[in-house]
Amino acid sequence: MRIRQFFIPTTRHIPAEAELISHRLMLRAGLIRQVASGIYNWLPLGLRAVRKIEKIVREEMEAIGAVEIMMPVIQPGELWRESKRWDEYGAELFRLNDRHGREFCLGPTHEEIITDFIRRNIDSYRQLPLTLYQIQTKLRDEVRPRFGIMRSREFLMKDAYSFHLSTADLEKTYWDMHGAYSKIFQRIGLQYRVVRAAGGNIGGNFSHEFHILAKTGEDRIAYSDSSDYAVNVDLFRDSPTPIVDGAPSPDGQGTLSISRGIEVGHIFQLGQKYSASMNAAVQDADGKKQFLWMGCYGIGISRILAAAIEQLSDGERISWPEAIAPFSVTLIALDIHREAQVKKAVEDIYHQLLPHTSILLDDSEERPGVKFANMELIGIPHRVIISRRTMDKGVVEYQSLTGKVQKIPLSDITQYLLDQLQ
Amino acid sequence: MRIRQFFIPTTRHIPAEAELISHRLMLRAGLIRQVASGIYNWLPLGLRAVRKIEKIVREEMEAIGAVEIMMPVIQPGELWRESKRWDEYGAELFRLNDRHGREFCLGPTHEEIITDFIRRNIDSYRQLPLTLYQIQTKLRDEVRPRFGIMRSREFLMKDAYSFHLSTADLEKTYWDMHGAYSKIFQRIGLQYRVVRAAGGNIGGNFSHEFHILAKTGEDRIAYSDSSDYAVNVDLFRDSPTPIVDGAPSPDGQGTLSISRGIEVGHIFQLGQKYSASMNAAVQDADGKKQFLWMGCYGIGISRILAAAIEQLSDGERISWPEAIAPFSVTLIALDIHREAQVKKAVEDIYHQLLPHTSILLDDSEERPGVKFANMELIGIPHRVIISRRTMDKGVVEYQSLTGKVQKIPLSDITQYLLDQLQ
Repeated sequence: MRIRQFFIPTTRHIPAEAELISHRLMLRAGLIRQVASGIYNWLPLGLRAVRKIEKIVREEMEAIGAVEIMMPVIQPGELWRESKRWDEYGAELFRLNDRHGREFCLGPTHEEIITDFIRRNIDSYRQLPLTLYQIQTKLRDEVRPRFGIMRSREFLMKDAYSFHLSTADLEKTYWDMHGAYSKIFQRIGLQYRVVRAAGGNIGGNFSHEFHILAKTGEDRIAYSDSSDYAVNVDLFRDSPTPIVDGAPSPDGQGTLSISRGIEVGHIFQLGQKYSASMNAAVQDADGKKQFLWMGCYGIGISRILAAAIEQLSDGERISWPEAIAPFSVTLIALDIHREAQVKKAVEDIYHQLLPHTSILLDDSEERPGVKFANMELIGIPHRVIISRRTMDKGVVEYQSLTGKVQKIPLSDITQYLLDQLQ
Repeated sequence: MRIRQFFIPTTRHIPAEAELISHRLMLRAGLIRQVASGIYNWLPLGLRAVRKIEKIVREEMEAIGAVEIMMPVIQPGELWRESKRWDEYGAELFRLNDRHGREFCLGPTHEEIITDFIRRNIDSYRQLPLTLYQIQTKLRDEVRPRFGIMRSREFLMKDAYSFHLSTADLEKTYWDMHGAYSKIFQRIGLQYRVVRAAGGNIGGNFSHEFHILAKTGEDRIAYSDSSDYAVNVDLFRDSPTPIVDGAPSPDGQGTLSISRGIEVGHIFQLGQKYSASMNAAVQDADGKKQFLWMGCYGIGISRILAAAIEQLSDGERISWPEAIAPFSVTLIALDIHREAQVKKAVEDIYHQLLPHTSILLDDSEERPGVKFANMELIGIPHRVIISRRTMDKGVVEYQSLTGKVQKIPLSDITQYLLDQLQ
């Protein structure tokens, strides 16, 4: 992508209420812009990172046999009355009436819609198990939207729902999903912890939360350094074992460390809460009616992006993990409008690399200082700087996010970059 | 994709109000299911076709330099008051209040949001022209939702917005967009006509509609057989030249034919309607304040799918155009659960083809009659039937959507299919 055909409105005007590093950097680097409290536009650079997260999530969902669908944003109130959540959900549910006065809400989750769909389209146990998922816009009228897209009122979520004839079968899919979520965060390249959690108002009786570790996280996670043991400290306040930094691990292995985490995923065994209240049942092999066993599994797509920035970036620049960087490589050409040689060299490199990776070519006429400042801010993992000064010596400059500037012969740079990307 | 890991709930239960072929077939073939009046779930098969349409649209948008963003579904009422559309839009606008009583609506289009974004992020004519687009869920409270997703209350639209310093520059982008839309419908493989149109309540003074021809279309299109002349008859009722089938063409070339069309795209030169009312301006090269010139360009992503079915399918089965078929090839294995030879053969073909195309492998244990009926209904362009009976003669059966059954040697079928796909 040529920067002149793209649109990255970087800015220094950051509102005072943007306290979190991710919120400030996403505004400064032109990833998002606020429309109203807790409501944002995704700009080109931010959207590209979102799409990369979506792709990883889709691949891992497909790998465990989940099938993609798309349910509506607007949902009939009558289904929410059936599940009793119309009254239970409270003020976080955006509600409205259509022109005929019928009640609707904007989906914060889709249990009612999917359960209604399943009860009308599944009639035999032979159609089970079934896991359906979507990546869809969700709405929640947060009492205090803040931290940019971290706690916003409109956001992107991957939500999956599974249906089963038995608890054993539900458990199998639950642990498959547990594995898929772990893979997703490993692929993105983030430090995370999985913790046992309470069900919350989705109504489950067994669930795990996935937290991306970051100093600014709202939850405190206690985890064993030598086992998988991890708990959300604030949910286990009355634990018989005191959960403090350095305490012995309740599973007898090592000691506990306490870090802050950002909840980005949550998986639930819902049991029969929705299938019983909404009468989603099939006939089993003996012809007996059985309410379905159900699981639900959410990942905050847009929140992962903010959490990744929180974990990896300092206050001055984004450091993208390679897997979700909006571009892998940026080529920065200096004085391109008056240096024909530079222009030719950068075009050659661009066209050689383009079949292999995603590239942001800075072919603008901005001053070098502006280009370097923007490059630092937006944090593309691999940078190549092409200038007349170094070309006269037959080299270009390469820098990774964490490394020092290196001089690479111009004739080698394409292969050198390809090697770095592998 | 293996059909046992997929989900295609075909059905014979079609409500009486589903009059249109596309509506009936989309329900029967398990592409969509109704949630409420004018509100639908997209099921796996339907969503795959939607994604193919989206991909073609994105490629043609990028080809003319449009850049993708994503704006919110929920929009602040105050921006709609600024543009005056809060009062003008009427009952089709879904309206709601948040927990603090502030007014919001659900976006049927995004002119207000984008104009607000542009006025706050563009300050120099050097940043122009700029064309931004999104593919996003839209909501419109239709007075009488019907025809399935053809006239629904929640739907998918690609909407693009362009901003310019001059009308000449707006016109250039307008005609680029005109060309991109034409390419989109050519790539999908549909008969379409472009007609001059009135502006409607988006407020434009120059616009074109793109219609997919279909007997069931709501609009009547008169077009010259020997030139580009085409008009929407119902908009040109008071034309001095009578617009009837067989009339001489007003441009002096040939005669007019009248067909019915389904409007799937609409491009507008909006002028300064929004930029003036919302004060979106930049300084020009002379330092003078100029309101921006603006265009907007919509395509109904989900409606294209229904229109494609209307144009190409008969009442009994879908005939997908290859470019947007949910799968290119279906492999139907008969009696796979007791014929090891069939199972091995079909698995071999599946794995050989998988890197090259999208395949639906029917590895279910259904009776052959059920498999054939489903195959006919869902209309995948290329079908291969593998059975013990023909394998004993060293052949498998191949059929395209429009051709007769052909017997192809088993050893040649993979290459034969690859040739058909090119």
